[in-house]
Amino acid sequence: MITAEQTIDEQERFRAGDTRILARYLTRVENHAAGMEEVLADLYRHTGQAWRVGFTGPPGAGKSTLVNQATLRYRRSELSVGVVAFDPTSPFTGGALLGDRIRMEKLTLDPGVFIRSMATRGQLGGLAVAVDEACDLMDAFGKDRVLIETVGVGQSELEVAHSADTTVVVLVPQSGDSIQAMKAGLMEIADIFVLNKSDRDGADRAYRELTSIVQMKHSPEGWMPPVLKTTAEKGEGVDELLETIQTHRRHLTETGLLETRRKSRIASKVQRLVEDAIRKDLWRSDRDTRRRDDLDHTRSPYDLAKDLVNDFYREISDERR
Amino acid sequence: MITAEQTIDEQERFRAGDTRILARYLTRVENHAAGMEEVLADLYRHTGQAWRVGFTGPPGAGKSTLVNQATLRYRRSELSVGVVAFDPTSPFTGGALLGDRIRMEKLTLDPGVFIRSMATRGQLGGLAVAVDEACDLMDAFGKDRVLIETVGVGQSELEVAHSADTTVVVLVPQSGDSIQAMKAGLMEIADIFVLNKSDRDGADRAYRELTSIVQMKHSPEGWMPPVLKTTAEKGEGVDELLETIQTHRRHLTETGLLETRRKSRIASKVQRLVEDAIRKDLWRSDRDTRRRDDLDHTRSPYDLAKDLVNDFYREISDERR
Repeated sequence: MITAEQTIDEQERFRAGDTRILARYLTRVENHAAGMEEVLADLYRHTGQAWRVGFTGPPGAGKSTLVNQATLRYRRSELSVGVVAFDPTSPFTGGALLGDRIRMEKLTLDPGVFIRSMATRGQLGGLAVAVDEACDLMDAFGKDRVLIETVGVGQSELEVAHSADTTVVVLVPQSGDSIQAMKAGLMEIADIFVLNKSDRDGADRAYRELTSIVQMKHSPEGWMPPVLKTTAEKGEGVDELLETIQTHRRHLTETGLLETRRKSRIASKVQRLVEDAIRKDLWRSDRDTRRRDDLDHTRSPYDLAKDLVNDFYREISDERR
Repeated sequence: MITAEQTIDEQERFRAGDTRILARYLTRVENHAAGMEEVLADLYRHTGQAWRVGFTGPPGAGKSTLVNQATLRYRRSELSVGVVAFDPTSPFTGGALLGDRIRMEKLTLDPGVFIRSMATRGQLGGLAVAVDEACDLMDAFGKDRVLIETVGVGQSELEVAHSADTTVVVLVPQSGDSIQAMKAGLMEIADIFVLNKSDRDGADRAYRELTSIVQMKHSPEGWMPPVLKTTAEKGEGVDELLETIQTHRRHLTETGLLETRRKSRIASKVQRLVEDAIRKDLWRSDRDTRRRDDLDHTRSPYDLAKDLVNDFYREISDERR
C-alpha cells in the first residue's frame, strides 16, 4: 500500500532527478500497477518538452545499433537521452529479452542516459500503452530526447508511430524489403527512411527502389520522407540522420503540425483511458463468467453479446438510482 | 437498404452454394457493413465443420507458395478449400495488395477453391475481426478447409492464431530467424513449425537451432510442435505438412482441447462484440468531440477521461429512467 505522503515524496524526488524513482515508476507502468494513473496525471504538466523519436523496421535491420549511435551523439551535444525498447514477453525468459540491450551497457554508466526495455504480460495493446506512459515519464523526468525502439515485429512496429514525434523506418538492402515494408504499412508511418547496412552489395539498387516508392507517396503534410543511407556499425550517416530529425522537428513546429499531432495523440489516450475504465466495470461481477460459459452451438455469440450489453446498462442505471 | 426478404433469399442462395453471395458477404464483412451481424448470427449454427489452418511467419518465408501447394493437394483429395489472406490497406493501391495472389490465379478457376484477400481501413484490430468473420462465412458455406495467411508483419502474425485451429509458423534458414520468431511471440502460437526453403545453404544448422529452441518450450497441452522441412517451390515436404496438420487435429479432438480452444475463441468474440456495441454508444453524441477538443496542457487526459466516463454512465441511466 502506497500512502499519499509517500507518493508526494516520490514525486519530489522524481522531479529532482532521482533515477531510482524513475525506474520504480517505469516498473509500475509496466505492471499496470494501481495508483500510477494519479501519478501520471500529476506529472502530466511537465511533459511536452522531450522530442520523441521512434525507430522501427524489420528484425535485423540494425535498429539497436542505430539507437546506440544516436544516443552517443546526443550525449556529445550534452542532450540527455531516454531509451524505451518494446519487448514482447517471452515464456522462455519471463520478461524482456535483453540480448540487444547488452551492447548498450557502456551507455548505462552515463547518468545522462536512461535505458529501459518494456515488456508486458497479457493482452495485445497493453505494451503500446506502457511504452507511451514510459515516454511520458522520461519526458516529465526532463530527458531532452526519448528514443523508442521496436523489436520489429508484431503490432509494435506500427504503434510506435503513435508515441513518436518523428518516426524513423529502418530497412536494409535486401531484395523486396521495400515492398514488404509497404505491405506492412510502414510507408504510412515513416517520417524518415534509413537504409542501414548500406555498405552491403545491392545498396545502390535498394536505395533507388526505396526512393522511387517513397516518391509515389502523397505528402499531405508538406513533408516528403527523406531516404538516408547509414552504416550504423561504423557510425556512418548517423550525424546526417540526427540533422534530418532536427529538420523534421522544425517542419512540424513551424507548420503547427506538431500541435495537431500531439493533440490527436492525447485524444487517443483519452479514448483508451475511458474505454479501459468502462471495460473494468463491464467485466467485473458474473458477466465475465457468463461470457465464458453461456456458450453453445445453438445460440450465437451475437445474441449472447446483446444480453450482456443490456445487463451492463441495467446495472449502471440501478447503481445510479 | 436491404429488406428482410432479400436477406432470406440471399441466405438461401448462400446455403445452396452460390459463390456470388459468399463474395458479397465477404465484402460486407470487410466493410463492416450494417446488417451483417444478423446474417452471421443466423449462419452461426452452420459453422464448426471446417478445419482452420493459419499460416504465419516473417515476410518472404514463402507462406503464399505453401498455401498454394496445400490447396492443390487438398483439392486432389476432393476437399473444398477457402483461403483468407490478411492484407493491410495500402494508400498506394487503396485496397488489398494482390501481388502474391496472382500466383494463385490458376486455382481460382477451380470452383472448389475460394480465395479472398481481406483488407480493412481504419483502426488496428478491425482486420482480425474481418478475417475471423470471413472464416466463419467460409465455414458456414461448407468449405472443408479454411487456410488463413498473414502478410507476416504487424499484429496479424499473432492474431491469426485466434482464428485458427492449427497454426503453422513458417520460417526460413536465415541466421537468427528462430531468435526473431521467439521475440515476436511466434513460438507461443505455433502448433507446427515449417522450415521452408530448406534446400538452401545452412538449412541443417537452422533446423537444429530451431529444434533445440522448440524443445525448450513447455507443452502443457501435451503437444510438442513438430519441426518440418519443406521446399514449397518444388512441393517438397507439403504432404508431410498436411499429415501433421491432420495429426494435430486428431490430438485436439481426442483430448477435448478442440472444444476448449473453440470455446475460448467464441468467448473472445463475445467480448469483442459487447465492447464494440458499448463503444458505439459511448462515442456518439458530443462526447467524441469533447474527447478531441477539451485538451490543454493544464488539465491531464486522466481527468478528462474520468469526466467522460461519468457523463456516459449518467446518460445511460437517464435513458433507462
